[in-house]
Formats: sequence, structure tokens, C-alpha cells
Amino acid sequence: MAQGIQHYNLGEIFEGFLLIKSATKGVASNGQPFLTLQLGDTTGTIDAKVWSATDEDLTTYTNGKVVEVKANIIDYRGVAQLQLQHIQLSDPAKGMSPKDFMEKAPISVETLRYEIDQTIFDMQNATIRSIVRSFIERYNDEFFTYPAAATIHHAFISGLAYHTVTMLRIARSLCDIYSGLNKDLLYAGVILHDIGKIHEFVSETDTTRSRDGNLLGHIPIMASEIKDVASDLDIDKDIEEITLLQHLVLSHHGRPEWGSARTPLIQEAEILHQIDNIDAKMNTLEKALGKTERGTFTEKMFSLDNRSFYKPLI
Amino acid sequence: MAQGIQHYNLGEIFEGFLLIKSATKGVASNGQPFLTLQLGDTTGTIDAKVWSATDEDLTTYTNGKVVEVKANIIDYRGVAQLQLQHIQLSDPAKGMSPKDFMEKAPISVETLRYEIDQTIFDMQNATIRSIVRSFIERYNDEFFTYPAAATIHHAFISGLAYHTVTMLRIARSLCDIYSGLNKDLLYAGVILHDIGKIHEFVSETDTTRSRDGNLLGHIPIMASEIKDVASDLDIDKDIEEITLLQHLVLSHHGRPEWGSARTPLIQEAEILHQIDNIDAKMNTLEKALGKTERGTFTEKMFSLDNRSFYKPLI
Amino acid sequence: MAQGIQHYNLGEIFEGFLLIKSATKGVASNGQPFLTLQLGDTTGTIDAKVWSATDEDLTTYTNGKVVEVKANIIDYRGVAQLQLQHIQLSDPAKGMSPKDFMEKAPISVETLRYEIDQTIFDMQNATIRSIVRSFIERYNDEFFTYPAAATIHHAFISGLAYHTVTMLRIARSLCDIYSGLNKDLLYAGVILHDIGKIHEFVSETDTTRSRDGNLLGHIPIMASEIKDVASDLDIDKDIEEITLLQHLVLSHHGRPEWGSARTPLIQEAEILHQIDNIDAKMNTLEKALGKTERGTFTEKMFSLDNRSFYKPLI
Amino acid sequence: MAQGIQHYNLGEIFEGFLLIKSATKGVASNGQPFLTLQLGDTTGTIDAKVWSATDEDLTTYTNGKVVEVKANIIDYRGVAQLQLQHIQLSDPAKGMSPKDFMEKAPISVETLRYEIDQTIFDMQNATIRSIVRSFIERYNDEFFTYPAAATIHHAFISGLAYHTVTMLRIARSLCDIYSGLNKDLLYAGVILHDIGKIHEFVSETDTTRSRDGNLLGHIPIMASEIKDVASDLDIDKDIEEITLLQHLVLSHHGRPEWGSARTPLIQEAEILHQIDNIDAKMNTLEKALGKTERGTFTEKMFSLDNRSFYKPLI
Amino acid sequence: MAQGIQHYNLGEIFEGFLLIKSATKGVASNGQPFLTLQLGDTTGTIDAKVWSATDEDLTTYTNGKVVEVKANIIDYRGVAQLQLQHIQLSDPAKGMSPKDFMEKAPISVETLRYEIDQTIFDMQNATIRSIVRSFIERYNDEFFTYPAAATIHHAFISGLAYHTVTMLRIARSLCDIYSGLNKDLLYAGVILHDIGKIHEFVSETDTTRSRDGNLLGHIPIMASEIKDVASDLDIDKDIEEITLLQHLVLSHHGRPEWGSARTPLIQEAEILHQIDNIDAKMNTLEKALGKTERGTFTEKMFSLDNRSFYKPLI
Amino acid sequence: MAQGIQHYNLGEIFEGFLLIKSATKGVASNGQPFLTLQLGDTTGTIDAKVWSATDEDLTTYTNGKVVEVKANIIDYRGVAQLQLQHIQLSDPAKGMSPKDFMEKAPISVETLRYEIDQTIFDMQNATIRSIVRSFIERYNDEFFTYPAAATIHHAFISGLAYHTVTMLRIARSLCDIYSGLNKDLLYAGVILHDIGKIHEFVSETDTTRSRDGNLLGHIPIMASEIKDVASDLDIDKDIEEITLLQHLVLSHHGRPEWGSARTPLIQEAEILHQIDNIDAKMNTLEKALGKTERGTFTEKMFSLDNRSFYKPLI
Repeated sequence: MAQGIQHYNLGEIFEGFLLIKSATKGVASNGQPFLTLQLGDTTGTIDAKVWSATDEDLTTYTNGKVVEVKANIIDYRGVAQLQLQHIQLSDPAKGMSPKDFMEKAPISVETLRYEIDQTIFDMQNATIRSIVRSFIERYNDEFFTYPAAATIHHAFISGLAYHTVTMLRIARSLCDIYSGLNKDLLYAGVILHDIGKIHEFVSETDTTRSRDGNLLGHIPIMASEIKDVASDLDIDKDIEEITLLQHLVLSHHGRPEWGSARTPLIQEAEILHQIDNIDAKMNTLEKALGKTERGTFTEKMFSLDNRSFYKPLI
Repeated sequence: MAQGIQHYNLGEIFEGFLLIKSATKGVASNGQPFLTLQLGDTTGTIDAKVWSATDEDLTTYTNGKVVEVKANIIDYRGVAQLQLQHIQLSDPAKGMSPKDFMEKAPISVETLRYEIDQTIFDMQNATIRSIVRSFIERYNDEFFTYPAAATIHHAFISGLAYHTVTMLRIARSLCDIYSGLNKDLLYAGVILHDIGKIHEFVSETDTTRSRDGNLLGHIPIMASEIKDVASDLDIDKDIEEITLLQHLVLSHHGRPEWGSARTPLIQEAEILHQIDNIDAKMNTLEKALGKTERGTFTEKMFSLDNRSFYKPLI
Repeated sequence: MAQGIQHYNLGEIFEGFLLIKSATKGVASNGQPFLTLQLGDTTGTIDAKVWSATDEDLTTYTNGKVVEVKANIIDYRGVAQLQLQHIQLSDPAKGMSPKDFMEKAPISVETLRYEIDQTIFDMQNATIRSIVRSFIERYNDEFFTYPAAATIHHAFISGLAYHTVTMLRIARSLCDIYSGLNKDLLYAGVILHDIGKIHEFVSETDTTRSRDGNLLGHIPIMASEIKDVASDLDIDKDIEEITLLQHLVLSHHGRPEWGSARTPLIQEAEILHQIDNIDAKMNTLEKALGKTERGTFTEKMFSLDNRSFYKPLI
Repeated sequence: MAQGIQHYNLGEIFEGFLLIKSATKGVASNGQPFLTLQLGDTTGTIDAKVWSATDEDLTTYTNGKVVEVKANIIDYRGVAQLQLQHIQLSDPAKGMSPKDFMEKAPISVETLRYEIDQTIFDMQNATIRSIVRSFIERYNDEFFTYPAAATIHHAFISGLAYHTVTMLRIARSLCDIYSGLNKDLLYAGVILHDIGKIHEFVSETDTTRSRDGNLLGHIPIMASEIKDVASDLDIDKDIEEITLLQHLVLSHHGRPEWGSARTPLIQEAEILHQIDNIDAKMNTLEKALGKTERGTFTEKMFSLDNRSFYKPLI
Repeated sequence: MAQGIQHYNLGEIFEGFLLIKSATKGVASNGQPFLTLQLGDTTGTIDAKVWSATDEDLTTYTNGKVVEVKANIIDYRGVAQLQLQHIQLSDPAKGMSPKDFMEKAPISVETLRYEIDQTIFDMQNATIRSIVRSFIERYNDEFFTYPAAATIHHAFISGLAYHTVTMLRIARSLCDIYSGLNKDLLYAGVILHDIGKIHEFVSETDTTRSRDGNLLGHIPIMASEIKDVASDLDIDKDIEEITLLQHLVLSHHGRPEWGSARTPLIQEAEILHQIDNIDAKMNTLEKALGKTERGTFTEKMFSLDNRSFYKPLI
Repeated sequence: MAQGIQHYNLGEIFEGFLLIKSATKGVASNGQPFLTLQLGDTTGTIDAKVWSATDEDLTTYTNGKVVEVKANIIDYRGVAQLQLQHIQLSDPAKGMSPKDFMEKAPISVETLRYEIDQTIFDMQNATIRSIVRSFIERYNDEFFTYPAAATIHHAFISGLAYHTVTMLRIARSLCDIYSGLNKDLLYAGVILHDIGKIHEFVSETDTTRSRDGNLLGHIPIMASEIKDVASDLDIDKDIEEITLLQHLVLSHHGRPEWGSARTPLIQEAEILHQIDNIDAKMNTLEKALGKTERGTFTEKMFSLDNRSFYKPLI
């Protein structure tokens, strides 16, 4: 990865490792199955075709695998493509990890972990503190490696923890301004709200939706798991804290038509939804504005109602 | 209750037992708290005021209690009202049960129970069968006494079981017509879909929403409990059956804007939603048409998009 | 049609009969008109181009005609296409009927006709019975050959009658469950509701919309024709039955935004809409699930709010 | 009616004739039925109660009847009310007609009739001309006496014809400006579009909706009747004119959610909808502004999206 | 105001000063005009009637005037009301100001002014700084006394400045978290966004909408005034800063259907909308929760989609 | 332009002048930038590619420039394209104006100017007259050359003035029919309503949206400028006329979701919106029907809710 796939030109030969970002089966007009692989590293992505794919190919080259390829960079209808000379799964001995081929959060895992731990440590309510701590222990690895979304915002390694920590910072400043907010509830809501994503995605490097991601969704999955964790901790199942934490998760998308199982009915739930909304939008905007020249407009962003934003000269 | 409150006229004196259907605290212009009680039996309802209510009154006369009253029937702004001479909680020794003052399903509990049991007995899939059976055992009483809704449809004793059995009958005929439907899934979905109402209402005779009914809703409560029951039964938590049963419950309101946490994504979930819809509408319509003369229109029904239905002469 | 067009491979030569499913005129960049023909049989469809099309070609090769072709199967941008060596209208002497090239309902016309006739025979209300019977006599052929929709559900020969008979089966089971329903009205509504489609489509083998299909739609066309038939039968124009039958047709799409000229205002109209909805959805689902492997999702279905349904493993 | 009911004060006695604008049955708290009559003349309306109403009262005092009353003007919760001393149906010998008690269009029936006739006379297309003429002959009286709506716009005697003539004037000026419009089609659409209202209302003086008004609506009723009239005139049922006239009627409310059975698909239908919209809004606005002082706002108008309009000082 | 109107009981006599919060003209059934005055102080409000109101009364007793009254506290249909013995405008010599009778922001005007001034002082962009400073100078009094809304949030003296300062605090913390935000633009947007309210309301003590408030609205009024101020300052009318400040004001309601003339198209405009939304909701919630006991629900709040919020026990 | 680009065939060579209607930068797969030019004259448009575009090319060939080209007409994926042999900016000496390559309004500028001037001359209200006249003087050239929209309706030279004059004609006929309308207000509203488009578009020959067009929109720009013009004329800023003219502009799109900053709240504003709507729709329809054969349907028109209109045979 010395150079990255984005830096190769037409006519050159690429030889190295790439991650399979997606693998889609097709059937050619002669009836033969083929695979379209989207391959990539941290610099970008490029497509490649595996023609006359065998059954073994179909089960070998799947989302999230690292492959070693040799290929010509050719022009296919105006877009660069890899014409494969050779492809094989990366030899485990070479120690390539899918995560090495993905973008990462701009804050280190250590810092993220420290802020999360400190927040939990400071919680006053013992029930809330022990439930939140159990979740972080249960998902000790996943919480700090998973992305927060498949494509739109925080779609990078540690995106989930980074999104959480940024939201915590906003939450802290709002608790300073609005003294009536219950800090334990709000911070717990922030930390727990998207943990269900760990079940919604197939894996940290494959954010297609799992069976449960599709049929249940991360919100009901997590509401159910809070009950589960509380039961493991022998917490009385009828105490208000469990209901409130479940409510925070169930209502954090704000409105039914935005995927929320409930509308927010406690102050902290309303604020949690607002903070989530702000951070998701800001992350999307920062990424789009980063690729835009001053005095011009960004591309249309689907998750922002298809708006093109202007990047001022001043 | 020989006669029923609806049969009394202005100027008469009522002496007997009535159920408190709702109790609302007010403050009079002299600053004194008072209680407005909606009292009723199976024939109808009538209001009564407890003026200068004491703290004890406020905690004594609450939803779902049976009271013994002596009162004049007076006219209050064009509506009959009870002018209380005396009110007290029904002496337990007199054996009055709140349920005696409420309407009941037109099918006996025995018949309802038989049809439910038979349906479970016939299930082929052992996992589904044992989960469904566990729920019926867990809520052995409640399932056969709770209403299915607070006001709109099946708002009577055993309404939940009656609604379930009617839906099972439709489900069976649709399985005969569409052979691709999985009977175990569909019947299990019918039996489980509204069990969460048992937690949503305060009690079988007080259908105001509980704290959890408001903050969580019967749908997420039930989805969470399916996981719970499966865990008690030592069923592998990742098997498809659990996900499918949770999905059936989560999606049975059809659309997010109708309170559904998911949209139906399996054939049986789509059909479950349709059957639920038909039975709720038919129950509402039958009740309204029962009070309407041929050749005229019913009152506007809120749950039917405010439509007035015509009752034909033929 | 020994083999069917779907079984040919690239490089082979097809020689035989095919139905023109659609014929679209284009203008090439050299200014010459050409025709794109979608040709097919019961196994599938394939495109062919008639370059430099003459005026005669444009009027000869139209929707619903059977043609005799000889052509190479070539690859055109990843999709198989017919490169025509020869094309001509099928010689009438060869007795090819367009219907032979289309999919058919899974129940025979005889069975469909029997169930319809029996249902009419059993009607108690003489006015309703004679109006319904007149329609079946008037459209004796079309009713049993037309599809019920252009593309989405029951888009095959006898689809209209098959859709009607399936709906009648559901209607009968609902009348058993809800005794207040007027069977004559509901069954008449089922039989009449989509007959206007016969005027909406150009022909049984060409389901593009006719002038009247576009400007009037099958619902108002049919409402108007009920009056017409009643007048031919010398039925008093003010009797309730005519209004009720018209209302059933006018309201069967349920809501204005779904193409309904009225909202349902009699119980049978509401149920008719629900049954129509269920059967249309089930037919669409069965077709999509038939092409999907267990444990995977169907393609997105436009008529089902763009949902992909899951086909369970169990 | 020398003076009109609006000019009476509290404490005075009214003796004279009034029209029953609506009669609503109620049940008093003593179980006795009573009637609430809304009585009025061209100057305004006032309520009266017929207590302990007999069955004969209920069938005698109905919408659209003229009654002779003697009554005190009393104050009932801040609103003037008639306290009846005597009420009876107007003696036919006294020649009172309900229409004498209703507001009338500001143009005479003769002028309205002349403009309609002249427009029909000038039509070039013989088919269209004869269909339109047949309708005016068929409803020779009703067309020139019915109102155009129950409450919102043109709710007065001859409102239908007045609305039609005003729309024709706009239509003529638009045909001068946009030369591509087909005058015959547009003028025929204007004249026919609301004739179905004659069936939608119970009578010219009782604009509650009839059975057919509710179950079918004026739009499908009229579309059906155009076919009928064409058939009486022995016009070939497949000619384009019939379809176009039906389309104009079916689409004149513009959008399904505004009660339109079709969306406008010919230029003249789109314009017909716009003209109808303008005239209905202007009539509503003129009435409201007529009661409003300069420099202030009108009351909120439901049919104008609940807006209050400002009446400028200039 | 020693005690406040809320502390009086039925049967007592109130003698003192009150503010006319609203004055509505009515016409009694005897044809006489009367006035309904809503009178109040910082503790609450009470209604009073001026019967047989003279023309002078109608022009004397108007919104925002302080009156001196002597009256019995009587019961009127269950609600306390003032039965006036005497009413007159407050003698100016007594130095009563309408503002003394209204609730005030919980932060002093000095503190509010200091934070606003400091924020302006710190702005880097000279153009933005001088425009914002001009506005604060132009509305030196109004900005620090007007409420921010008529009824929903910040409806108290200095509400506009208080709302602004709270928003500035949130804005500052977000600028710390998201370094890409342009502080000058965002802070200027916060300070300017609601200044148009000064023209939308009749006065600081009468928040009914003015003619321009109705016909133009505070958003376009303010966008226009920014141009005006820039012109007074001889700033080149085409520079980007003017456009950006106008855009911030025009888009701060977020969506057209929420009253926004534009959707936010710069990052700071999106954030401005979010902050405004958060502070308006929090102010409404704090007020409602302040009146609610722990473990119960607030009243339904119209501006929060009619939700009742739960106030947890913890 | 003897012949026009539309009349050239494949294989021919075009040599002459064309207007750059749009210029879009792309990056080829070899990393080289290229330009896609849409070139056109009054007969049609054709694409051309400038491969390996230099920085100078990118700044030279921009929207609205006239170029002199020599090129082969080639086929590119079924669409004709120019294969450039030579391209250069048109020599100014050759006197080619971009406007010569664009469609023009069907009425001469002189006639348009005369009708506008006459309308202003006839205005009774001196304030309104002088404001409207100032605008026409201020935009003496632009008003009579700009189009009224970018693509949908009146997208041709003088489209703005032509749209205005057609609307004035409708306005005059409505003022004859509805005598309560204030002619000065309505005509002023018609003339001013779209003048802001002059700032919304980059130039008369380049209707891409300017920075202010995007961030402010023509409606708020114009509302602000009315205040400006009134101030230049020393008109008292608080008089009603200014508010009314601003209101007419702010509300002429009718509803917020259609881009209106206010809903119409004076009669003339409601009518202005209706007239604007009619003329925009009629212009779009006339253009589409002009390209459609009788007895067939137009293409789907996005601005008409995606409807295809039928062009009758009669």
C-alpha cells in the first residue's frame, strides 16, 4: 500500500493487496456467472471482474476479505478498472488486516476509550452506571472498531466510538447550559444509543445489513438487550432506570417516519435526538466541504434532503 | 345491577354498585380539589362529582374500583348526572368484581382457550410451539381477561383473546387459499402480536396507559420479552425462529407512521398486519352499525378516518 | 416453442415464433426511424431491433402480433439480443395465437367459470343477481381471458377471473366469520370490481392503456356501465342496489390517493378493498418469493413500497 | 318578512314566517326527544327548540319547510334564541315559497339563461352542442335554481347558474389569450361540471347530501349521466367527444386528494379546474371581505386553508 | 402587587393595578357591545367584562395598558372572574409600567448586554461586526426588552435577548467541537436571527401580530433590513457577507413548511437552525416540567407535536 | 446559421457559429481534465468534447459564449455528437451575439414595452405607480431580454416581459369580472413579481443560478429591493403600499412548500398566484402539445406533476 490505488494511471500495472468492499454476483449473457468486486484501500476504490466464476470463487471472494492481485489498469466506458491477471486470498502469513485498508477516526482508540470510561466512572446513579459499564465490557472490541453507519456519516474504523465521544462533548456543554437535565441519563443515552449497530452490520469491515439488522433493526435489538443486561446484573426488572434507558434508545431517531420506535417523551431523549442529528449532519457536511473549493457548492447530499451546500469565500 | 344505570330517569334515586371507569382531579374556583368520577356498569356510564375531596378521597376513588352509591339523578347542562348522597368503596364481603361491570366478549373463555390451545398443539415447529405455549402459560389469566384496546375495538373483558381467536380463523382460511404461507409462523404471530398490551394497560379494568405503556409501547415490550422467554427455554439465541417471531410483533402495525417499529419483511408479517387491520375495523364497524337504523349513516368514527358508514336498507 | 427463448445461448440461432410484447419507435442518429421490439414467449423475453424501419414496418409490427423470426443471439452491452436475419408476421394458416405465448392462470377457465356461475346462482337478491349475470354474459370471453393488471399482479391470461375467484374464496370465509356482512353485495362487488379493466387495456394481449383507460380509468367506466346495464334490464334507476353496486366499484381502491373515486362507506366496500389489497399483494409476493432462495431477500418490489422481503430458512 | 329576523332585539316578540334551514333531533336528559330548528330568512338565522317533540313534529318540521311562528326573543347563554309560543307549517294558501327566504344570485335568472343559451348556440361541434343542450333541457328548472355548494361558495338560489356564467366569462377571456384552447370543449366543461350537484343535494332548498350524494358523489354521477344522455341522443358511444366531456367532469377537482376521480389530462381540463378554483375562492373572499372593515382581517376561512385575509386601507 | 392576583379567593375583593393582556370586543344578545379583558400580573391572569362598553371604552382599554380596578372575585361557570365595581386607566403619576406586570428573563439585562457586546467585540470580520453592532445600536432598547415569541417559548420581558444569549453559549461550545465552523458567521446569525420580531409584534407588551408581522413576517422583514443597514454603512452591496447574513436569517426556520424562506445552504445556517430549535424546545420543556410532579406527565404541548413528557422519579 | 444545427446529418461536416449553453468539466480515466460543451442555436443542441482541456480552455469556453467550430457529425452511443476539428471564441468583429442563438418571445419587445408602459401610466395610486415605474427604469434592458425561467416555461429571450404581459391580459379580464379587485395592486404585483429573476440568473443567456439566486432566491431579493426603491423615492417607509407590494411578491408562489415566503393574505395576492400558475402551465403545455400529434399523448412533464397530456383529434 506504499502508494494507494488512487495514484495509479491507465496502462500501469497494479500489484499488491486490496480489500473486497463488496462482491456482487452477475450472470453473463452466455449464462456464466461472474463476480464484480469493488476493491479498495484507504485512498479509494476500483472495480474488477472475475469472469466465469466457479462456485469456489463465489464463496472465497466475499465482502471484507483481503486479496492479493496483479492487474492492468484499463479504461472501461470512461472509468478505470482492474483487468485481473491474478487474484488470490491474502496469505494469512502476510498479516494483512481488513482494517488496514479502511479510513480511521481522527482520534485514537485510547483517547476515545479514556473519555468513555471517565464518563461512566463519573455517573452518580449506580444502576445506570453498571448497565452502561456492562455494555462497554460486553463489546470491548467492537465498540471501538465499528463504524457508526454504512455510508453516510462516521463510516470509518472507530466511527461508532468517535461519534459517541463527540456527542458526549456536546451533551456536557448542554448540561452546563440547561441545569435541569439529568446527566447520567443523557450520557448513558449517548453511549448506548447506537450499540445495536454492532448487530445491524455483518461485521466491522462489512456494513451490509445482517438478517437481524434487516428484520429487527438496531433500535429494537438494543432495547431488548438492555433488559437482558439488567437481568444478568440482577437488577429489579421494574425499576424506572431500565425503562428510561430503553426509552432513550427507542426514541433517539425522533419520529416514527425517521425510524424511531417511540417519540421522545423525556427531556433527555429529546436532547439525545437533537445531538445525534447535529453530529451526523456535521460529519457529513465536513466531509463534503473538505472536497469543495471556496465559492462553490458541494455535491447534492441525499442525507441532507438532497441539498448542495455553499462554501463561503470568507 | 338488576336494571343498569342507563335505565334510570331524571328525578329518580339510584342506589347500588358502579365501577369507577375514570377518576379525574379538578380544582374548584374556591381552590378546593374535587373529583369527577365516570361511573358505569354494562349498560352505560354517568358522571358524578365528589366536591371538596380529601386526600383520602383522591387515593380511594381511583380507576377500576367498585363503589356503592346512593344518588339523585339530576340534570346538569342537559346531561344526566349523579348528585351523590353517599359513596363508599364496595365492601369486599359483597364480592363485587370490577369485571362484572364491564362488557364481555361474545364467546366464552372456555371456547377461546380451547381454540388457542388447539392451535398451539398443532404447530409443527417445536421452537415456535414452545415459545408460544410459554407465553400463554405465563399470562394464563391476563390473556383471557384483558381487552385488546382502550376504547376503539375489542374494548371489553376477554377482548384480547377474542380478537386473537377471530384473527386465527381468518388466518386459517388464508392458509388454505395461499399454500405458500408458513402456518406456524402466521398463527404464532397472531397469538403473540398484542400480548404486550398486558403491560401497556394499568390493569384489565383500567386501560389507561402505564408508565412503560407510554415510554416503551406494547410492541417493543413484547419484542424484548420474546428474547427473554426464549432464553428461559434455553433456546439458542441466534436461531432464525426468534428473529422471525420478534419481526412479526415489531412489524404488525404495518407502517412506521401507524406505530410499527419495522415494516413487514416476511410474507406472514404482511398478512398478519392485514388480518389485524380487518378484525379491528370489523369490530368497530359492527358496534357502530349495531346502533344505527337501516337507511341512515353511523356517527363519524375516528379510527376509520372519520368516516360515517351507511347501513343499507337491503 | 419446443424450447422457449430463455433456453438459447449466445452464438446460437433462433428460428421460430415469438409474440411482440411491445414495439417502440426510435430515431437513429442518421435520422432513420427504427423499431425496438420486445419479443417473448412463456419462458421469457428478448429485444430485437428493426433498423431503417419503413412505414409499413411501423404499422405491421405492433403490440400483440405474433411474428416468425430467424436471428442470431448476440451480446449487446452485457444483455442478449436478437440480430434479425428475417422477420415476418406469422402466417395465419399456422394458427398461432398471441395467447399461446403468454403465461396463464394456474386454474383452468372451466373451473373459474364454474365458481363464478355458482356464486351468481346462489345470490338471493334478484336485482343484484341479474345485473351481475348480465355483465358476465356481456363479457363472456373477455372476463375469462383478460389479465387483472398490466405488470404488477395477475398479469397473465385469465388473470382477471383468477383474481376474482381467489377474492371470492376469501370473501366467503370472511362472511362465515362476520355474520353481519351482506353476501350478495360483497360477492357482487368482488365480481364487478375490475371488469372495467377490459376497457382500460387495449386488448387481452396488449395491456397498454387505451384512450379511455387514460382519460377515464376503469373505475368510472365501470360505475357508468352498471347504470347502463341496469337500464337495459329495465330496473328502476333509483333503487338502492344500483347505488350500492356503483359505490362498491367506485370505492374499491380505498383512498383517493390510491385512485379511489370514493372512500368506502358501507361495510362490504371496506372489506372488498381489503380483500383486493390482500390478493394483489399475495400474488406479487408469491411470484417474487418463487424466484428467491431461502435465507435471502427478494428484489425490491415497487408495488410493495419498494420493500425486499426475506424468505426464511424454516 | 318586512323586517327580517336579524333586526329583532332581545325581549321583542317575533310573529311571522321563517324557513327551517336545519332540523336536528336531540334527546333531553329526561329521555324526551326534542327538536333544534335553525330558522331563517334572507337577513339571518336564529335557533328555536321544540321540547317534548311528538313523532308528528319530527316528520313535520324538516329541512326546507316554511313555518309560521310566534315567539319571544330570549337570551340563551349569550346568544339570541326564539322561545316558541306557537309554531305550525305555513298554510299553502299563503303562498310562501322556501326560496323567498334564501339569498339569491346577484344576476337575474333571465340573464343567466340568456348567456348559457347563447354559449350553447355558438358551439361549432354538433355532438358537444347537442349533449350540452340536452342537459340544460333535462334540468331546465333545477339548473337555474340550485345553489353551487352547501355552505362555502355560491350557497344561494341560482348559485349553480351564477357560478357557471361567471366561469364562462373567465373562460372566454382565456380563449382570447390562449388561441390553442378548444372553445367548445372548455365551455361545455364549464356548463356541465357541477350539474351533478342537483343529485348530490336533497333539494334546492335542502343542501344536505342525499344517499347518492354520499355514496357516489356529484362527479361520478355526472360522468355516468353524460353517457346516458349521449345514448338517448343515439350518439356513437365510442366517439372521442363523449370521453372528453366525461374526462372534463371527472378531473375538474384537479387532484385525487381534492376529490377528483382523474387528474386533468387535456389542456381544457386543466384550465377548467383553474377557473373553477378561482371563482370559488373569489366568491368566498368577496363575501368575507364584505363583512370586514378596511385595515383589519377577515375571520379564518376553512376553505381557504384557514387563512384570515387583510382588507387594505387603500 | 403585594400579593398577586393568583392569591385571591372567591368572595374576596381585589383592589389594585393589573395589565390588560388582551381586550376582545363582543356583542351581547341585546345588541350592546361589551369588552372581555384578560387582566394579569406576574402571578397569573383573570378575566373581566366591561358591559355596555362605550366607544371611549373600546379605544381606552386596549392591549398593554395598565388599569386600576376594584372588583369582586366571583365564580363564572367554574372559573374565577372579576366583577368590576370600578375600572380606570392607571394614573401616569403612579408610575406603573406594563413591564412590571410581566414575567422577566432569569438573567439581568446587564449580563445579557455584556455577553452580546463581548461577542460582537470579538468578531474578526469587520463587515460582519459593524453590521451586527449597528443593529444592536438601532434597537438598543427593544432588543433587551422584547420577548422572543408570543406564547410558546421565551414569552417574557427580555426573552429575545435571553434566547439569544443562551443560543450564543451553545454556539460557542459547538465551535470548540467543530473547528470548521466560522464563528463570526454563526454568532452573527444567532444575534440577528429574531430581531425582526421587534417589527412582528405590536409592542414589547403586546405580542399580537402587527400588519407587517402578518403580511411580511419577521424573516423577510429582517432580511430586507440587513441590506438597509449595510447601505447605511456604505458597505459594497455585492459582497458575500451581506448575502451570507441574509441567508442565515432567511433559512433559520429550517424548512419551508416551518416558515423558512430558504433551506439552510451553509454549514453555519444549518447549525443556527439546530441551536434555535434546541433552545426553543428546552425553554418550553423547562416551563412545563416545572409545573409537573415527578413520576407524572406534563400537559400536551402543541409546539412539541402535542406530546406529554414524563418527569422521571430519579 | 443559414440552416441550423438540427438539420445536419451523421457524416456531414458542420462549420459555423454556435452558443455554449453549458460547459461541464470532467476528468478522464487517464487523469486529464476535459470539457463537455452543450452547443446550440435556435434549432436545437448538440454535444462536443474538448479533450485534454488546458486551464485556458476551462476559463475560455464557458456558459453563454459564442464559438466558431469546425467538426464532423459522428455517432456516439446512438446520439449525434460533434467531433471537433477546430474551436475558437467567435471573433468580436463578426458581431455574433449570444441572443441570436436563442429562441425569442412571439411578441416584439416594442409591443411588450408599450403594454407595460401603458399599464403603469394608467395607475391611479401615485406611490404604486412611481415604485413600479422606477423598477422598469432601473431594469430597462434586463426586463425586456431576460427569460422568466431556466428551463420550464418562458425559457427564451424576453420571456420575463412576455410572461408579464400575458398575465396582465388575464388580470385585466378578471378585474372586469370581479369588481372588488384593486387594479393598481394587482397590475403592480404582476409587473414586479418575477423581476428578482434578473438577480437569480447569472445573465440573460446563462440561467444557471447565481450565488444570490441560490442563497437568497428571487422572492426575498425582490421584497428587499422594493424597500430600497421606495427609500430612493423618499416614500415614507411605513405606508401600507410598500407592505402590500412586498406581500404580493413574497406570496406569489402560493404555499411555503412551493417556495412562497408567505401565503397570500390579500385578495390580489391570491389572484396573482392563480394567474402566474395558469400562465406558467399554459406556456409549458403549449410547447409540449406543439410537438405532439393529435390522438396521442405528450411526454411526461415534470412541472405538471409528471402528467402526459392527451391532444384530442377534434
